[in-house]
Amino acid sequence: GRAQAVFQTTNATTLAVGGASRSGIEAALASVLERGDRVIVGNYGHFGELLCTLAERHGAVVERVAAEWGTPVDVDALVSRIRAAPPKLVAIVHADTSTGILQPLKEIGQACRDTGALLMVDAVLSLGGCAVEVDGWNVDLAVGGLQKCLGGPPGLALLTASERARQVFTSRPSEVDGAYLDLNALEALWVRRHGLELAAVPMAMLYAAREALELVLEEGLAGRWERHARASRTLRAGLQAMGLELFADDRARVPMITLIRVPSGVDESGVRAQLLAERGIEIMAAFGPLRGQVWRIGTMGTNAALPSVLAVLAALEAVLASRGWDARPGAAVDAALAAESANAADDGGR
Amino acid sequence: GRAQAVFQTTNATTLAVGGASRSGIEAALASVLERGDRVIVGNYGHFGELLCTLAERHGAVVERVAAEWGTPVDVDALVSRIRAAPPKLVAIVHADTSTGILQPLKEIGQACRDTGALLMVDAVLSLGGCAVEVDGWNVDLAVGGLQKCLGGPPGLALLTASERARQVFTSRPSEVDGAYLDLNALEALWVRRHGLELAAVPMAMLYAAREALELVLEEGLAGRWERHARASRTLRAGLQAMGLELFADDRARVPMITLIRVPSGVDESGVRAQLLAERGIEIMAAFGPLRGQVWRIGTMGTNAALPSVLAVLAALEAVLASRGWDARPGAAVDAALAAESANAADDGGR
Repeated sequence: GRAQAVFQTTNATTLAVGGASRSGIEAALASVLERGDRVIVGNYGHFGELLCTLAERHGAVVERVAAEWGTPVDVDALVSRIRAAPPKLVAIVHADTSTGILQPLKEIGQACRDTGALLMVDAVLSLGGCAVEVDGWNVDLAVGGLQKCLGGPPGLALLTASERARQVFTSRPSEVDGAYLDLNALEALWVRRHGLELAAVPMAMLYAAREALELVLEEGLAGRWERHARASRTLRAGLQAMGLELFADDRARVPMITLIRVPSGVDESGVRAQLLAERGIEIMAAFGPLRGQVWRIGTMGTNAALPSVLAVLAALEAVLASRGWDARPGAAVDAALAAESANAADDGGR
Repeated sequence: GRAQAVFQTTNATTLAVGGASRSGIEAALASVLERGDRVIVGNYGHFGELLCTLAERHGAVVERVAAEWGTPVDVDALVSRIRAAPPKLVAIVHADTSTGILQPLKEIGQACRDTGALLMVDAVLSLGGCAVEVDGWNVDLAVGGLQKCLGGPPGLALLTASERARQVFTSRPSEVDGAYLDLNALEALWVRRHGLELAAVPMAMLYAAREALELVLEEGLAGRWERHARASRTLRAGLQAMGLELFADDRARVPMITLIRVPSGVDESGVRAQLLAERGIEIMAAFGPLRGQVWRIGTMGTNAALPSVLAVLAALEAVLASRGWDARPGAAVDAALAAESANAADDGGR
């Protein structure tokens, strides 16, 4: 019901994995992959690397189609690779929090469907914050988490599998590595309600998931996506008015996290520590090659709203000013409010 | 801190696994076992079978030392097997909910320590309800869950590993099957606080665990164990006064769940359904070879107390009476109250 609606799918095999988001990602990969299977991973950030690591851990031979951190994977190049020699599985992140980049998926899904490859998508960051069209894009396995744009607590992964994917894990000749993350067992428990393990399901997390999904559906998916997009536009207008430079090309950016280049001469971790200590606001460091070079500000769930955006802008302006950064006081908030008015006018004109 | 106290250990490697109790059991087995390793499983119920299944799933060659359902494993026989040909690991359940039997562990732990075998114990049911002396009994890996005698919600496993066990999983030549349940990664996250995954820990479950453990330690371990023992004695006195027969030998029974033989001619599942529908009390069916033959009544956490015991006795008496069972009305509650007085007198005499 609720999880299917959020994934935009009619997949019967839509279930919860009792663990962090990555337990769901590992369940998907471990359950369809066997030793020696070819996997193509579209890799444009930290969580693409994780897909490679996990696929290799479960015996697959991984071919990377990589993009530099800050751009999505070249869809034409990836599609050509898939069509030239279809792998068993293509795995890719939909929205990678390490780079703030959104990956277009539709053509990749079509190529997979045409060639018989399965498509597995890490939608942990994107689910609930922008469209994740599992059925519309021919995604065979998708995984989400509660704690990003669904606005719930961490500790439960949501997973959906197409009938094609289900055929693969139910009919594989070898056993899945490990029992806890075996989709055959998870499907028996959650979908067919078999097994004696119902007493062991994480009830508190299930209630949290039900409530989070209910709130998402009450708001409506389209409204929620637009709210995330507006919050990002508003935040970015304020940051630029402060004289800060955003990371990556605007057209490729996700609508739930914003990456900012740390100006030269500014103490990256010092600013974060001061924001947390003096203002109670946590912004995030970067991963891997971007470490020390960018800050990351999330606008997810309840924080994808004007009050949170204005609070972080005012706080960041004050902290930067205390460190000698030269920007007109109030410029960020003014620009954000102007952008919010323009957003509202856009909405009115529809 | 708190988890170490409950496990009665000084093990530095004491941590949480984000998942059901069995995720912790699988993490322990998967992390120390490699292909072809010899494992001896002491098997006296459903969860002993699970240890066999999981050890085999991770490539081990399992030798079973089995007991009939209703008795613990013969300690002398198991110790002889260990001493004659020490395996890499001995795995055993401390208290198996399927049979209500408590397994003595001290001599098994001594044999393991003497011979260099590791001892892994499933303490999911026992932890918090009776003594689990990880250090005192030379247990190398122990796993508990919040939702039994610790009185918390399901969804997080507690795990402790001795330095001997830690040496095994940190120095193994082959990779652990799977990443999510790899104790090397879990130790880096929880003990050494490495890694970028802190954002993914199940915070709501951690708060629940902290609160549950805090309540356990406020009560005191010895007091809590005695409360569980008293609740069982009281319940059993009432059941016997009703003319019901308990399963298994009294000396071997666990102090947190009571198994009752279903009298011949009584509808096992009908009684359970009626108790739930009319009284809101859930008692449990049995597993495997005991299915249909016994009921199981838990007295764990907050239910290990006189009001819960009297409520279930009165309800069961009424339901059985409605089905023609012949017992003096009130006999069960009277006997329970008499047993409770005797319990109190015993305490007073200390």
